[in-house]
Amino acid sequence: MLSHNTYFEGAVQSIGFTRNGRKATVGVIAPGEFRFGTDAPERMTIVSGALEARLDGSEVWRSYPAGTSFEVPGKSAFFVKATEPCGYVCEFL
Amino acid sequence: MLSHNTYFEGAVQSIGFTRNGRKATVGVIAPGEFRFGTDAPERMTIVSGALEARLDGSEVWRSYPAGTSFEVPGKSAFFVKATEPCGYVCEFL
Repeated sequence: MLSHNTYFEGAVQSIGFTRNGRKATVGVIAPGEFRFGTDAPERMTIVSGALEARLDGSEVWRSYPAGTSFEVPGKSAFFVKATEPCGYVCEFL
Repeated sequence: MLSHNTYFEGAVQSIGFTRNGRKATVGVIAPGEFRFGTDAPERMTIVSGALEARLDGSEVWRSYPAGTSFEVPGKSAFFVKATEPCGYVCEFL
């Protein structure tokens, strides 16, 4: 029912689940900079710590403290930077 | 740096991390009822879905929707019930 996902040699890990027919994950991003490609559109909500993010095609890094979120188009990509471990919820829209 | 924790045959799974010297996990509780023992005091914050919880020694179940939290004393225990997968942040205090 739950899945464990690991990326970037374990520097990003998440637990996946489905609720009301929608897929989501909760996870942690260790310190570093990472690129994620999207298939479906996604909403990333920061739930612990803080994250910087930049959408593909933009030069602008934005800061997202816990309690804030951003959305990423499908068939796209985004870049994140964490200076401390950051907890997030990712909803596939 | 990150750890993957699994309990109750995979029905509860979390990713553990340390920030500012404090340990925390983000995880998912699959539908079911589970008992957790505590060593250190913990703060549980619901970040996706909803959870019912009861502290050891209490008869009262309380509902915690996403955005709410509860604290559990150390050397204690608490019971949770989820009807749908529930995402949480657990901070060790």
